[in-house]
Amino acid sequence: MTYRAKRVSIVTEKLNERQIERIVEEAGATGYTVFEGSGKGSHGVKNRNRSIVSAFSLVKIEVIVSSRETAEAIAERVAETYFENYAGIVYIDDVEILRREKF
Amino acid sequence: MTYRAKRVSIVTEKLNERQIERIVEEAGATGYTVFEGSGKGSHGVKNRNRSIVSAFSLVKIEVIVSSRETAEAIAERVAETYFENYAGIVYIDDVEILRREKF
Amino acid sequence: MTYRAKRVSIVTEKLNERQIERIVEEAGATGYTVFEGSGKGSHGVKNRNRSIVSAFSLVKIEVIVSSRETAEAIAERVAETYFENYAGIVYIDDVEILRREKF
Repeated sequence: MTYRAKRVSIVTEKLNERQIERIVEEAGATGYTVFEGSGKGSHGVKNRNRSIVSAFSLVKIEVIVSSRETAEAIAERVAETYFENYAGIVYIDDVEILRREKF
Repeated sequence: MTYRAKRVSIVTEKLNERQIERIVEEAGATGYTVFEGSGKGSHGVKNRNRSIVSAFSLVKIEVIVSSRETAEAIAERVAETYFENYAGIVYIDDVEILRREKF
Repeated sequence: MTYRAKRVSIVTEKLNERQIERIVEEAGATGYTVFEGSGKGSHGVKNRNRSIVSAFSLVKIEVIVSSRETAEAIAERVAETYFENYAGIVYIDDVEILRREKF
């Protein structure tokens, strides 16, 4: 028996990690996992006509939540707060969990 | 041409890594990948009324299998064996693979 | 408001990392992330009757692209070029992104 849930994946420059974790906690998530990595991508910059591509150190923060509303709230808050000025992406996908009471 | 498969993701305290890998191998999986990370979450504790939240070192073990039955068998065995007493989650999602014979 | 996109996940021996990143860039992806890990799996070997299982250092390269065609093109090129002779897998899954213009 499995239950549908949502995973939010936030890939961001390492310097934003603590503040994004706070957004995740404030949204009511019961936990998250963090992986360090590297990457290459286009910075979101204020001037939208310009896109700077560079290599950077990053973290990927993954959060499982039971509702689409919570997933979208986290994703939108992170994107609005950080991704105009810092490199990063946020995306949501579907997962099946075993125990609903943990989320 | 792609084929549907299942990915099982197990996030667990590092001390359980070897034993969970044995569960994965015994279930007939042909391989797995392991990533080290950190996280914060609610421990599954025997006394269900109490939930301890703490930061901890973790590993994420990912396994691709061709059948839902194998995916659920791994997920259930891991959850039953470890997640009453240790922090961790297990979840399943859908992926498309290119070559069916590898799994 | 979210948009459907595809994530390509490439798990490969570390020595192939740079060349696979070049395939990803040539396919038109705007970025990718890389995580180091370890794993165990069956090598794809030219002689298909033989399968060597070994532990190895690996990287996981994740790429978000907006079209299924680009995702499959990357996956097929990587599989054809590397996975006859090196350990590794490539798979595709569905994700929802917030901002279509970044991909």
